[in-house]
Amino acid sequence: MTNESAQRAIGVAVLGLGTVGSEVARIIRDHSADLEARVGARLELRGVAVRRIDGDRGVPEELLTTDAESLVTQDDVDVVVEVIGGIELPRKLVLAALNAGKSVVTANKALLAEYTGELAEAAERQSVDLYFEAAVAGAIPVIRPLTQSLAGDRVDRVLGIVNGTTNFILSAMDETGADYADTLAEAGRLGYAEADPTADVEGFDAAAKAAILASIAFHTRVTAADVYREGISQISAADLDAARSLDCTIKLLSICERIVDADGSERVSARVYPALVPREHPLAGVNGAYNAVVVESANAGRLMFYGQGAGGAPTASAVMGDLVMAARNRVHGGRGPRESKYADLRIAPMGDIPTRYYVNMQVADRAGVLSAVAAEFAKREISISTVRQEGAGDGARLVVVTHLASDAALAETVAALAELESVTAVTSVLRLEGTSE
Amino acid sequence: MTNESAQRAIGVAVLGLGTVGSEVARIIRDHSADLEARVGARLELRGVAVRRIDGDRGVPEELLTTDAESLVTQDDVDVVVEVIGGIELPRKLVLAALNAGKSVVTANKALLAEYTGELAEAAERQSVDLYFEAAVAGAIPVIRPLTQSLAGDRVDRVLGIVNGTTNFILSAMDETGADYADTLAEAGRLGYAEADPTADVEGFDAAAKAAILASIAFHTRVTAADVYREGISQISAADLDAARSLDCTIKLLSICERIVDADGSERVSARVYPALVPREHPLAGVNGAYNAVVVESANAGRLMFYGQGAGGAPTASAVMGDLVMAARNRVHGGRGPRESKYADLRIAPMGDIPTRYYVNMQVADRAGVLSAVAAEFAKREISISTVRQEGAGDGARLVVVTHLASDAALAETVAALAELESVTAVTSVLRLEGTSE
Repeated sequence: MTNESAQRAIGVAVLGLGTVGSEVARIIRDHSADLEARVGARLELRGVAVRRIDGDRGVPEELLTTDAESLVTQDDVDVVVEVIGGIELPRKLVLAALNAGKSVVTANKALLAEYTGELAEAAERQSVDLYFEAAVAGAIPVIRPLTQSLAGDRVDRVLGIVNGTTNFILSAMDETGADYADTLAEAGRLGYAEADPTADVEGFDAAAKAAILASIAFHTRVTAADVYREGISQISAADLDAARSLDCTIKLLSICERIVDADGSERVSARVYPALVPREHPLAGVNGAYNAVVVESANAGRLMFYGQGAGGAPTASAVMGDLVMAARNRVHGGRGPRESKYADLRIAPMGDIPTRYYVNMQVADRAGVLSAVAAEFAKREISISTVRQEGAGDGARLVVVTHLASDAALAETVAALAELESVTAVTSVLRLEGTSE
Repeated sequence: MTNESAQRAIGVAVLGLGTVGSEVARIIRDHSADLEARVGARLELRGVAVRRIDGDRGVPEELLTTDAESLVTQDDVDVVVEVIGGIELPRKLVLAALNAGKSVVTANKALLAEYTGELAEAAERQSVDLYFEAAVAGAIPVIRPLTQSLAGDRVDRVLGIVNGTTNFILSAMDETGADYADTLAEAGRLGYAEADPTADVEGFDAAAKAAILASIAFHTRVTAADVYREGISQISAADLDAARSLDCTIKLLSICERIVDADGSERVSARVYPALVPREHPLAGVNGAYNAVVVESANAGRLMFYGQGAGGAPTASAVMGDLVMAARNRVHGGRGPRESKYADLRIAPMGDIPTRYYVNMQVADRAGVLSAVAAEFAKREISISTVRQEGAGDGARLVVVTHLASDAALAETVAALAELESVTAVTSVLRLEGTSE
């Protein structure tokens, strides 16, 4: 850890040899001269933990091992790269590595969203690094900007498109007019959706990333369980049509927000749901498998980070950046930013959050409908921004967009609308984000 | 510098009390609790160097001093923030600070573009930090992503809009159709252009930033003198019209590129000029005083960073991020990334760089003109992408867009075109960037 060791090599263990692990191993092998110049010492691959040793994996067979537990505590290993996925196994291995004084680089958002606290404490006890740039938005630097570049600023909001699968599906639905089921199937065929797409389409992946972003943006421990979550499986072609008619598109957003209450106290909101986003908002143009994160802070104003959020090579790029930094710290001494949780803000429940709603109703085609609907909003002091009446007869519809109101009041209003005699059905309710109000 | 000093305060000296310096002093005062939690020690403002002590500057008068040289070497100062601008005075002060073992944070691109080498060596000798995130693109994190996040990747190209004044002018010309002189005057009235706008409109500011970006992206010392530079003062309303007809806009770009020669050896190109940019390119939508930097690398692919590139608060945000990191290193030990120049690539002259040209000519309205013009391109083996003939009689024009060719061959062709009998005048020549070719 000190300068006298500057000449020795830095030993690296990689856990997992999927697309990211293979890329990391390849880069360490193919770019050793560049990496040595940047680290100040050679990076040497000491071993790669795999489930089974078979066939040509692009890594010399003598480096493969099924005994991950021994690998992570091996004397000649300095940095452990965890890219196996799952939670319990990587948790055990990462903890063992940290406890043995190894620095750790992980791309595992699910693990971090649940156990950052435990892992960070282990890293702290051993004065080693725990880096995880690849866990959110793949190759796009967001962890480092938030923890370092904005270390002297006050972040108020983070708004991200951080799941490639859902963004691919919603972009395609917007472009082709196809419905959700067909587009999901197409995404699967093209390799953009997994055989079991639940973690992506139901927002679990985006929620894990929201927990990580909220934790670092607000210096508060936020776990996946603290994140309000809705997925995209209920979004229909008709919703995208309606969004277009409002000059919006629909995006699955991960939102982390500092909520300032009337008495000046602060809370954190972390939430994931599909929302209408105005076409002129920078996130509206982020399509396909691309990711982007918008950060709003007191002094920097609005920043946006854009790029490829997934895939072997982009994720490996982020892992390698962390690996070089962790290795550099082993050579030159020092540590990267550690967990910062001093603000310790409470989590605000979804009902307290001010949002805007878009409500699409099938209504009776007769006078007085609008007045009955408007009364329900007025009763809860919710101000309406626009109303549009469309169609006639059985096809008569009413589309209402509100101003900001508490999510609880809006949800209550929607429930009341569904009970109105003149409202046949509330066919769609979505939140509207990214407007200046 | 070690853990036993974790409880003492970190002394900060600020050089300059303009818009950025005032903001920095204000943030240190107003956010002391947050900053202390993030640094691990209190930040204490030890003094602010100003040219004259007069009136209320928002800083307690006893902290103001005209003796910057004494301030930067004062025993109780740990980190010096340099925001005075100019070159020779800050060079002297920053060197004195570094030599006295202080870490330095500077926003001074002109200083860095000329003297990074000298300053980095002084920082190296004393094992202190030299941070300069604010020197390029204001609040937008680009230095840290390039030096840290992409430390394990291979950057091939950086393409930036990094000067707010020229981007404001070009965006306004594109939007209003007004000419350059009127738009510059308007920019001055609105505070977007200085009384002497030369550094901005002639590309000197963008060139300094290109030198800094190229240095860190390619691990090579690149100074302002190595950067090829053209400004925007020759851009006319007619050029923007022509750009629009090609579905492009015009942007002043700072371009840093890795050039791989036929024998596999590598050189660096750093250059600044106004160029046509296709509307669908992410930089085309960056308007007004906003900045953006696109980074293309082997594994991460294309990343974009977007935000406010200038102004007191955004620049102060970047300075404060650096200050917190430098202070943290004083408290916890360790150093941020130091200068990396191991690749030591040669600079490629502009003539060697492959670019695409747009050439707008006033021509005689008769048969054979196109053939004569095309012959000049063919003679130098330059392939033409599109040709458009417009108007008739005295207003006859020919607009040619080429494929990639060496800048030297293109320049030679343009010179030959001007000599053709059938070409009345070559009215405009611009490069085309950001296309997939």
